[in-house]
Amino acid sequence: MTEMQLLADRARKASREIANLPEEKKNEALHAISADLRASKDVILKANDEDIAAAEKAGISPAMADRLRLTSDRIESMADGVDQVAALPDPTGKLLSRTVRPNGLVIEKVSVPLGVVGIIYEARPNVTADAGALCFKSGNAVLLRGGKEAVRSSGAIARVMRHALEEQNLPADCICFVEDTSRESAKEMMGLVGRLDVLIPRGGAGLIKSVVENSKVPVIETGVGICHVYVEKTADLEMAANIIKNAKCSRPSVCNAAECLLVDEEIAGKFLPMAAEAMAEYSVKLLGDEKACAVLPNAVPAAPEDFDTEFLDYILAIKVVSGPDEAIAFIAEHGTGHSEAVVTRDESVAERFLREVDAAAVYVNASTRFTDGGEFGLGAELGISTQKLHARGPMGLAELTSSKYRIRGTGQIR
Amino acid sequence: MTEMQLLADRARKASREIANLPEEKKNEALHAISADLRASKDVILKANDEDIAAAEKAGISPAMADRLRLTSDRIESMADGVDQVAALPDPTGKLLSRTVRPNGLVIEKVSVPLGVVGIIYEARPNVTADAGALCFKSGNAVLLRGGKEAVRSSGAIARVMRHALEEQNLPADCICFVEDTSRESAKEMMGLVGRLDVLIPRGGAGLIKSVVENSKVPVIETGVGICHVYVEKTADLEMAANIIKNAKCSRPSVCNAAECLLVDEEIAGKFLPMAAEAMAEYSVKLLGDEKACAVLPNAVPAAPEDFDTEFLDYILAIKVVSGPDEAIAFIAEHGTGHSEAVVTRDESVAERFLREVDAAAVYVNASTRFTDGGEFGLGAELGISTQKLHARGPMGLAELTSSKYRIRGTGQIR
Repeated sequence: MTEMQLLADRARKASREIANLPEEKKNEALHAISADLRASKDVILKANDEDIAAAEKAGISPAMADRLRLTSDRIESMADGVDQVAALPDPTGKLLSRTVRPNGLVIEKVSVPLGVVGIIYEARPNVTADAGALCFKSGNAVLLRGGKEAVRSSGAIARVMRHALEEQNLPADCICFVEDTSRESAKEMMGLVGRLDVLIPRGGAGLIKSVVENSKVPVIETGVGICHVYVEKTADLEMAANIIKNAKCSRPSVCNAAECLLVDEEIAGKFLPMAAEAMAEYSVKLLGDEKACAVLPNAVPAAPEDFDTEFLDYILAIKVVSGPDEAIAFIAEHGTGHSEAVVTRDESVAERFLREVDAAAVYVNASTRFTDGGEFGLGAELGISTQKLHARGPMGLAELTSSKYRIRGTGQIR
Repeated sequence: MTEMQLLADRARKASREIANLPEEKKNEALHAISADLRASKDVILKANDEDIAAAEKAGISPAMADRLRLTSDRIESMADGVDQVAALPDPTGKLLSRTVRPNGLVIEKVSVPLGVVGIIYEARPNVTADAGALCFKSGNAVLLRGGKEAVRSSGAIARVMRHALEEQNLPADCICFVEDTSRESAKEMMGLVGRLDVLIPRGGAGLIKSVVENSKVPVIETGVGICHVYVEKTADLEMAANIIKNAKCSRPSVCNAAECLLVDEEIAGKFLPMAAEAMAEYSVKLLGDEKACAVLPNAVPAAPEDFDTEFLDYILAIKVVSGPDEAIAFIAEHGTGHSEAVVTRDESVAERFLREVDAAAVYVNASTRFTDGGEFGLGAELGISTQKLHARGPMGLAELTSSKYRIRGTGQIR
């Protein structure tokens, strides 16, 4: 057996031990973890300094350095996050359905942990604590494999969490950290069929694509969002300008930010200048189709691939459409099934958009930026699923569970 | 684009057209399909004769020939199956949850079709009608790729179904049939990332393993069942003998049949002869561990791999255990997460078994043979999922749906 397989088997063993742990016991352990994270700031910051030094030597970008860097405040908010997970209701042991069959069998369906969850992520040390806490609260063991630039920081965080679990007389292997951050280790995780119940990639489009295409273990695809805001001809144009400004500019680096504005031809001449004006303070680069460019002197002609690009930046593609038919068809072709919004005062257009647009979250008269576990009232999330299997949209604790049937009989045979 | 990709894209287009079809319209179409299947018996039987002739020439086994063969009665029951699917409630458009957020956003979660479902199956023509009907009722388009020995029969059935849909002014491409039954075509289907929402293999262990290991599209793993019946020392021994007889012998070729009997040491001397006696009429081959062989003169010593084999035959592995600890640990190691049963009169053992055994269906005092969509009251099923993601246990119509969030706002921004 390889080291990775041994690690996964240790996680499996631990997962069995915590699968039926009472909620209070799990919450106590989570509070112990958050306390230890706070108490271990120095150790974690020292490991982080070493990561930063090594990364800078290797010529890391400032944006990446920022994601990698921990501060006392950031560790504090990481610990707060763990406490917040403790405050969420336990998703396991819920009675999902109950039937008494004509033959007397009593069939109950109950929620249970998935078992062993694998997470492959990038150089963001905070994911170690977030994902570890969410998996633990839902009764799962987790195999964490982060990006190599953050291996010292993430490893330090994982060790603190493991130690806290041990102090609570719980198996440290609920949280297993993969020290080997080579490409091979990721590949090996993707091959742990029967050992991992699910693999969740958290990170950029490249990482996600690689995991989706190479994993033999079931994957939940997260995150890529080419989100549209469609401004229909009856829209309240001020509302629409506000919404596109928020959807594009409030945090362009995240997956629920809008990348493309669709606008009805009839109102394009009036609305596009309003939209451009609303976003002026952010110097958004506007990439327009021919009709949009005719209205907007500052717009640059869009290349076809611009409508299939997740910019994650102050860049917006703009297309003028003839109406809902074209808008909905365009979203079907170019959307990634994440978040899509229409701004309209026409009820029938609104209902049609809600019905026909095939995405995790479909909005009428609101910003796409709301697609988020916290904003949906689910608490912390482990990412936003853009696939249709198992989980769709923000993945909270409930999405980290499966179910099983418990059947009680009195000797029934078939 | 390849032919397979074009086919999948046609299915995608059709899936959009039927995603929001009213239930009555779907039921009408299903009744039209069943009527046309009945009316087309001659055509289907002729195609089947050709399949059989070709298969016999190629030297097919009698068991396989039986699965392949259609008769007037079998077509009749296939049509009945389609009518039964029509009678099941529509699983789409269900309001799963509704929240009004403090900011006024109204967030609804509703069930929606998955989109395009791929099915890879073997030489069982009836799967064509079953799977086609279930996918259609749940608003999905389906790409059916059956085994080559049944390609004429399955193709004929698919053509009848497609024609019936067209007559109802519905897109025939809701049911797409892959004429190419080469290995390459299966492989190509497994690579249809973004074109298929899920791939479901239906068939033997080899097919399932190959799909699970090679598919880049999300897979639902179905079917392999190494199911145990554990007879605990307090069991009603007559009930236990009845249950093991039923679980092993009522239909040994199916996945919910028992493959292994575990029995407490304390009662092994008394119970094993009773069990052997109960199964005597079926001439079950008994493969025992040392202790079982000491009690059962007819038992043959079991090899270690016998405890990891899905016999699908009148063969039963038997192991004597010291009690619930060993039985539960043994099932954790050798079970496939399908169906597991305990026979006991001790409530605490029963509850512990229900809680700790990690399988799709866990039974107390009943046969494992009940793990079935019909027996669970779910109606027709598309297989039994042994994975934990998305679906676990019998997959009915509900398991062929996903969800989406519909959010209504009044201009909210974040």
